[in-house]
Amino acid sequence: MYFKYQNTTNLEEHQIAETGKTLDTYRDHLVNVMESGNYEAAESSINLPTDDTLLKNVQELVEKKKTEILKYIIVIGIGGSNLGTKAIYDAIHGYYDLLEPDRFPKMIFLDTQDETILSKVVPLLSSCTSKDELLINAISKSGGTTETMTNLEVLSSSLSQKFPDIADRIVFTTDEGSNMHKKAAELGIDVLLMPKQVGGRFSVLSAVGLFPLALAGFDIDKLRRGAANMRDICGKRVFFEDNPAMASASILYLLSQQGKNINDNFIFLPQLESLGKWYRQLMGESVGKNGKGITPTVSIGSTDLHSVGQLYLGGPKDKITTFVYATENLNGTTVPEELTYNLVPVIKGKKIHSIMNAIVQGTKIAYKNQHIPYMEIGFEKIDEEALGEFLQFKMIEMMYLGKLMEVNTFDQPHVELYKVETKKILEE
Amino acid sequence: MYFKYQNTTNLEEHQIAETGKTLDTYRDHLVNVMESGNYEAAESSINLPTDDTLLKNVQELVEKKKTEILKYIIVIGIGGSNLGTKAIYDAIHGYYDLLEPDRFPKMIFLDTQDETILSKVVPLLSSCTSKDELLINAISKSGGTTETMTNLEVLSSSLSQKFPDIADRIVFTTDEGSNMHKKAAELGIDVLLMPKQVGGRFSVLSAVGLFPLALAGFDIDKLRRGAANMRDICGKRVFFEDNPAMASASILYLLSQQGKNINDNFIFLPQLESLGKWYRQLMGESVGKNGKGITPTVSIGSTDLHSVGQLYLGGPKDKITTFVYATENLNGTTVPEELTYNLVPVIKGKKIHSIMNAIVQGTKIAYKNQHIPYMEIGFEKIDEEALGEFLQFKMIEMMYLGKLMEVNTFDQPHVELYKVETKKILEE
Repeated sequence: MYFKYQNTTNLEEHQIAETGKTLDTYRDHLVNVMESGNYEAAESSINLPTDDTLLKNVQELVEKKKTEILKYIIVIGIGGSNLGTKAIYDAIHGYYDLLEPDRFPKMIFLDTQDETILSKVVPLLSSCTSKDELLINAISKSGGTTETMTNLEVLSSSLSQKFPDIADRIVFTTDEGSNMHKKAAELGIDVLLMPKQVGGRFSVLSAVGLFPLALAGFDIDKLRRGAANMRDICGKRVFFEDNPAMASASILYLLSQQGKNINDNFIFLPQLESLGKWYRQLMGESVGKNGKGITPTVSIGSTDLHSVGQLYLGGPKDKITTFVYATENLNGTTVPEELTYNLVPVIKGKKIHSIMNAIVQGTKIAYKNQHIPYMEIGFEKIDEEALGEFLQFKMIEMMYLGKLMEVNTFDQPHVELYKVETKKILEE
Repeated sequence: MYFKYQNTTNLEEHQIAETGKTLDTYRDHLVNVMESGNYEAAESSINLPTDDTLLKNVQELVEKKKTEILKYIIVIGIGGSNLGTKAIYDAIHGYYDLLEPDRFPKMIFLDTQDETILSKVVPLLSSCTSKDELLINAISKSGGTTETMTNLEVLSSSLSQKFPDIADRIVFTTDEGSNMHKKAAELGIDVLLMPKQVGGRFSVLSAVGLFPLALAGFDIDKLRRGAANMRDICGKRVFFEDNPAMASASILYLLSQQGKNINDNFIFLPQLESLGKWYRQLMGESVGKNGKGITPTVSIGSTDLHSVGQLYLGGPKDKITTFVYATENLNGTTVPEELTYNLVPVIKGKKIHSIMNAIVQGTKIAYKNQHIPYMEIGFEKIDEEALGEFLQFKMIEMMYLGKLMEVNTFDQPHVELYKVETKKILEE
């Protein structure tokens, strides 16, 4: 993964440098948090990639729960409890699940409680011949998430009709000492704990993400290695030129001060749409408060050039764009040398990658000609290591951005506003 | 489907009325276009729902191509060539495809050329035992769409190795007289034509959407009926109170004049995410030009309350929200009377719908308390008729909005900017 911003943001280097410099004290604080290795500070999610106790706990439970015939891992969680896991799953497998009906295990994500989904997922899972084909991972920091408990109660009750002892195919992931933790102990359900200080949107590298991913066969060592390396780059390096999180946060801040209120993540890798959605929560919840905030959007290239491309190139100059694309050929597919239809002759014999690359380059030139600022993130490949790098880069970027915008990056007080009203209605 | 805006937009009724009144002449023009019944005017997509020749052509080709063993309908098209079809397919079937592995036919959408997708879709389709399990519908107005031709050439060439006479399982949909039309004649490929004046984003009710949907078993009569009814409401009714397209366009315009530059479609029906993406193109391309425009976003409830809800409730007041939700119980799923975990006792014995409904109501109250303007669209059910109503409502709304914003609703000149640059690179 690399990050580039030079000469494409409409900002002067010295502006970015001056803004970056104001983050010096906060960067020192991040270094202190890393040296502590514990989970006391609000930023302590940065200690997850090197937490070996965490890794051991996850690996032991994976060993206990994995079976030869595992078909479905059902992740019940919403927001920070599933967005990171889904981002990584979709990037490597999930986006292709319909095209690979025989590849297992598959992950099924239940986030909001949707009546039609539930009416279809129950028969699917009930059609399994053994409970060892299933593993349910219910994830909630507090245990009090309405959607998560609705899905868990319905699924658990329905499945127990066919599999009376389904409890040993259920794992809870929750805060230590939460009601959900106590309930797990009471019912003999295996549990993984997450540090209280680590909020949902910073939790992908905790047991929240590691357990279901490792159970599905993902290489979590590589994921952690990528994150640990990027943490050292983004959390320690002094100069913004060498520190992508600091540079990116400074650019987002400076351009938002100019009135650009949208950060479009224009991703030319359709399998990373869920990664974009993970980032939406990260940015939305971290810096969207006190009347401040930047609205994160996700666009998919080249698809959305045929959708919102007109608006982006011809509409208001209200966006800060982050292009995300592959720098290398991910596999060898090419267009035939002999075209059957020959309606676009220029594609003859070309690699699919080189056509996509031409579209990315063409789009960047068009943005530059229209004076629309952008940054770039290039992926050499899409594997656990590169994804770990990206996730850690963006989480630290958001810590810097929160500092620059003078908000508390780690709270989400306004979420209570609708929850309180909803609770009143449900209790009526 | 119903539309509501009363007392939730922070606008006075007389403001909306005055803006609505300025659309009178244009509404008269729409009536004239309807009376003509032809495809000469830029707005003539409104004549599609009552075009019986179109219906007959589609039905005849469906009869010719449908087979008992049809498993995959591969729609090759991008932007306006697939977004509407995918919106309807996903709303009723597609969103659940992973949960219903044995339901066929399934639609596979190839939009951008993605090398990994192609490396997986070719083996899947080649595993079919008969070409009658497949139908490929390639859709391009001009026939010159790079992505569409790349996907078609690769797929066609790969499949012809197993099925040498695959041509009769291919259908082209294109403009009359286009190069693609000529090529179809040359190669004996069946073709459906679309009216030249109907742009991609207004084409869902032409052969573009009708053919693949009818082949997949969708009730296109109901789809057309819903659209025709809504057309008469939105294209003919004089007073904005009775005319949802006129009211919604006026509200979007007035609020955008106040500096709100984002129209968030907050959809509490996850299966309608693709419908939201269809709307993104409709709004993005229709009114995003000359430095003007409103950025359409899609949020999914209740999922995104746990993601961008904090930003929406606590961040800048830069959004016009359109809530979309189900007004009725779509099916009967309930939470058990006996809770196994009992961590959220209030859900006990409740219908899933009533929990979702409480979240929708709670969210609306929170928005109102924060003085965030919104409109509402309620679906009594999710079927072809209701979807036809929605699509037609939004297409006419966009015509009114373009008029109010003083742009040409029907062109997309800036899309050429990146295409020209891309072409230069591909020709190097």
